[in-house]
Amino acid sequence: MSAKAIVDPKLDLVLERTVDVPRHLVWEAWTKPEHLKEWYCPKPFSVSKCEIDLRPGGMFHTTIQSPEGQEFPYTGCYLEILPEQRLVWTLALLPGFRPAPRHEFATFTVILTLESVGSDTKYVATVMHIDESSRVKHEDMGFFEGWGIALDQLVAHVKTIQQS
Amino acid sequence: MSAKAIVDPKLDLVLERTVDVPRHLVWEAWTKPEHLKEWYCPKPFSVSKCEIDLRPGGMFHTTIQSPEGQEFPYTGCYLEILPEQRLVWTLALLPGFRPAPRHEFATFTVILTLESVGSDTKYVATVMHIDESSRVKHEDMGFFEGWGIALDQLVAHVKTIQQS
Repeated sequence: MSAKAIVDPKLDLVLERTVDVPRHLVWEAWTKPEHLKEWYCPKPFSVSKCEIDLRPGGMFHTTIQSPEGQEFPYTGCYLEILPEQRLVWTLALLPGFRPAPRHEFATFTVILTLESVGSDTKYVATVMHIDESSRVKHEDMGFFEGWGIALDQLVAHVKTIQQS
Repeated sequence: MSAKAIVDPKLDLVLERTVDVPRHLVWEAWTKPEHLKEWYCPKPFSVSKCEIDLRPGGMFHTTIQSPEGQEFPYTGCYLEILPEQRLVWTLALLPGFRPAPRHEFATFTVILTLESVGSDTKYVATVMHIDESSRVKHEDMGFFEGWGIALDQLVAHVKTIQQS
């Protein structure tokens, strides 16, 4: 498997940016619940629950909480784990690879790749959708703003780890 | 990952049988197109095309041909490969882990496990469906008869390899 995802512009959304934190800490931020909770949702939304079973077929669960306290649970499945390089998970499958009912919002797969650029990290998140309308809906709901703010929060959080 | 699938009787269909051929040849029969074509479809249906890219995220494609020449293509994605022990693939994802449109017939995941019992092989195929109605439909369409006949054909084919 090459590290990069094969992108279809009709179906996929890609956030690519080089961030000034080291690759191993970006990996920590994505794979440890105590870190993920700190950055994964653009504030004032938050992560009220996170479970990570980091192996192919393992669970990736987050519950997103609105400022009013409403909860939105998402349960997906890890597919591929190359530490500090490539993380693949999907909402199309439940843990144990069981096919998931189509999600009301979007049934997508995420391929995250990380590459060192000096002491910085090239961060590429590719989000693959079932069809064009799902991609358009996700984009219109603010994919680029949302994932961009989350990445800003990730970087800010990782810098607090670096300093501690 | 434990070798066995976690079965939900409402959602899953399981074919379990001990067959009198060695495990490594059952694995060959499932993972080499030239062998798979010989047994995968209950006759008089046949496999007119088979592509296997045996790695997580790789393609598993079969085209089934009816006696009248009508073709039914199925493209899935391999998820987990433990040689001669465990093979997992799904129709819920396309190659590269892209979410698949829901299949007109059934969007299922297959977990095949093989275990040596002396010189025989304990063969367990677990087929996991999205919902109960998909499982019922697959069962009513003759899952047990179809997969059973295919396994008979596999055993017969493997015995010709053994003798050659």
